[in-house]
Amino acid sequence: MYRSHFIADVTPEYDGKEVIWAGWVHLLRDLGGKKFIILRDKTGLGQVVVDKNSSAFGISQELTQESVIQVRGIVKADKRAPRGIELHAEEITLLSKAKAPLPLDVSGKVKADIDTRLRERVLDLRRQEMQAVIKIQSLALKAFRETLYKEGFIEIFTPKIIASATEGGAQLFPVIYFGKEAFLAQSPQLYKELMAGVVERVFEVAPAWRAEESDTPFHLAEFISMDVEMAFADYNDVMQLLEKILHNIVKTIKEEGKEELKILNYEPPEVKIPIKRLKYTEAIEILRSKGYNIKFGDDIGTPELRILNEELKEDLYFIVDWPSDARPFYTKSKSENPELSESFDLIYKFLEIVSGSTRNHKREVLEEALKKKGLKPESFEFFLKWFDYGMPPHAGFGMGLARLMVMLTGIQSVKEIVPFPRDKKRLTP
Amino acid sequence: MYRSHFIADVTPEYDGKEVIWAGWVHLLRDLGGKKFIILRDKTGLGQVVVDKNSSAFGISQELTQESVIQVRGIVKADKRAPRGIELHAEEITLLSKAKAPLPLDVSGKVKADIDTRLRERVLDLRRQEMQAVIKIQSLALKAFRETLYKEGFIEIFTPKIIASATEGGAQLFPVIYFGKEAFLAQSPQLYKELMAGVVERVFEVAPAWRAEESDTPFHLAEFISMDVEMAFADYNDVMQLLEKILHNIVKTIKEEGKEELKILNYEPPEVKIPIKRLKYTEAIEILRSKGYNIKFGDDIGTPELRILNEELKEDLYFIVDWPSDARPFYTKSKSENPELSESFDLIYKFLEIVSGSTRNHKREVLEEALKKKGLKPESFEFFLKWFDYGMPPHAGFGMGLARLMVMLTGIQSVKEIVPFPRDKKRLTP
Repeated sequence: MYRSHFIADVTPEYDGKEVIWAGWVHLLRDLGGKKFIILRDKTGLGQVVVDKNSSAFGISQELTQESVIQVRGIVKADKRAPRGIELHAEEITLLSKAKAPLPLDVSGKVKADIDTRLRERVLDLRRQEMQAVIKIQSLALKAFRETLYKEGFIEIFTPKIIASATEGGAQLFPVIYFGKEAFLAQSPQLYKELMAGVVERVFEVAPAWRAEESDTPFHLAEFISMDVEMAFADYNDVMQLLEKILHNIVKTIKEEGKEELKILNYEPPEVKIPIKRLKYTEAIEILRSKGYNIKFGDDIGTPELRILNEELKEDLYFIVDWPSDARPFYTKSKSENPELSESFDLIYKFLEIVSGSTRNHKREVLEEALKKKGLKPESFEFFLKWFDYGMPPHAGFGMGLARLMVMLTGIQSVKEIVPFPRDKKRLTP
Repeated sequence: MYRSHFIADVTPEYDGKEVIWAGWVHLLRDLGGKKFIILRDKTGLGQVVVDKNSSAFGISQELTQESVIQVRGIVKADKRAPRGIELHAEEITLLSKAKAPLPLDVSGKVKADIDTRLRERVLDLRRQEMQAVIKIQSLALKAFRETLYKEGFIEIFTPKIIASATEGGAQLFPVIYFGKEAFLAQSPQLYKELMAGVVERVFEVAPAWRAEESDTPFHLAEFISMDVEMAFADYNDVMQLLEKILHNIVKTIKEEGKEELKILNYEPPEVKIPIKRLKYTEAIEILRSKGYNIKFGDDIGTPELRILNEELKEDLYFIVDWPSDARPFYTKSKSENPELSESFDLIYKFLEIVSGSTRNHKREVLEEALKKKGLKPESFEFFLKWFDYGMPPHAGFGMGLARLMVMLTGIQSVKEIVPFPRDKKRLTP
């Protein structure tokens, strides 16, 4: 047994009791012949005091920052110490000695640039801010699934090695699969649709890959996609579901992630239901009224989203009813105006976090849409085939976990959020 | 709105009320001038009756099995009908017409071989047995995470595209990563260890890949790995955690998956805590006493596990303390006898479901172990480096989701369990 208590579980009521802590040497200080160790475990920081005449004093002289130790000692309540207690060491066991100096300061006093941080990543992740990010992400995933379970959704996993391109041929990573060429899935789109044609309500949290050439703070070659697909539903139904999901995620983080938000000095935005819906055509009008040379069919990029954010005075809103030509082939057009589609993006400030739509569920419509995009229906026969055998109307969305985390932590780059990011330059650590 | 109620939510108390159902035409029957439709949705089967003089009768004549329809009608309590109710159709909308004949019988009356089932997979998955499998898997994942949250574990995702082999170079799928060679991760092993060196208790549920040449019912090229890693713990601690996890999974399925187990006509084994621990050396002795020519260091294969299962009269047990040479380099040897390691496999009948161990947390020990396996420490520098900077003692395990599902459903092949399996022969659907 390495520990009897986590640091945060020892309160002033333990005064006089013996406990064993285990963790990392966060900071070391000599003061008046005593050694002060700020010890860190997953629950936080605690103060260990080593008296000169304690039998632990010898070993305390050998300690370095980030060394892993185990401390048996007696708790003393002390209002000046973190958490109102100190542990007076009687025995220290050195479990793993860290080299000095460290290539990165874990206590966070010395700031490092992003390249250094990603190179010395394990030390960087141990900084309290990054631990907070990791914990908030886990809470967000828990809350995401909770809402979906409540609504009768079933968790699935779809294949990641695929024979052909999901949404066209661009940006795929080739895999050599038993001597044959295959690809890494860009998204679970087509397979999750098929699964919605089986058990109606499905979700998946899994990696997806895009061979992104561009180096932006919001793109990665490997990312975690949170996918939802729902039969007998349209885009309005899934926007309502998404509102519930986001509301529960933010609520959970504000309740169960209080400490972490405090460390990050950040407050996620309120999710007011209903979230504002701005039509694509309205967005274009606003942008034109601000002097932007933008026409129907154009994408709305980051600079334009910044303008909309300012004009709308909303940090979180949907842009709905995008031009059909601007969306993937599986997106359903509006019956009253086929130039527009039953589609939406969820925007946080200037970032697209979620993209969704009603899907086409008629084979002939899908074939037409593929041809219009210059894609061959024959290449999609593994998908199209099932539309001959009872595919229900359905809708869904995909949410980028790291982008959601931008909203939840305030950190302005997905490369800082993902523990070991993959981009054109980075394949290690 | 496509439906007002799911099928299973309509009880005899709805007698006389109007409801809207939506789903698939599971079976069709003509009887005494009436049309009987067994309708299927995600909640089960329900009976729709179309009278000859109902305005819905015309369209009911056009229906085929697996067509997707929406039915507005009046509920009639009727003890002879499934669930004690019938829906008397007033209006039927044909949402998606299925071609006839179907290439696979979804009602399950006509049996198909496994190749046909995997080719006509979406129809096969709609069979009630396969829907039950999909739902049980989702429940198992929920229960797995619940126990881990309760024990303070944090969900993580580690990189799947890696620069070098995780546990040696065999069985890797190469990826062309921006013109460079990279690989798909065989397991999250090394990265989850590093993350345990950050936030102590982590888990991950994610795909992993092995280029398995052999075609067995228990191997796939792509599989979902449920991984746990825990700092300040040894293999006994993680075996105890695993016992809690399995207990909660089986309990959850027996409680929340009653209907699904009934459909499968299967009862998962009781998880008695503690689960029996059989030493590797004891296993060898038993096998020798049964006339097997097996010596210390040999693997224990399927035929041998069948013998042990019979001899022990236990379906679920650990084999512990495996020879160090038989385990990966990161496995810790026992200090009192370095020929043996602090390792375990969890066996269900004749199948290894989980593999775990205490890990080496000293750089020099890891380097020695790598060399002994003929691997170059330099190739693992991205991993070894962090052992200079305070890696705590740690232990963990990996569980194969599809293999766990063999235990939870009684289905004797992971290819039947995984919706879209990937093996040497299969890359579609």
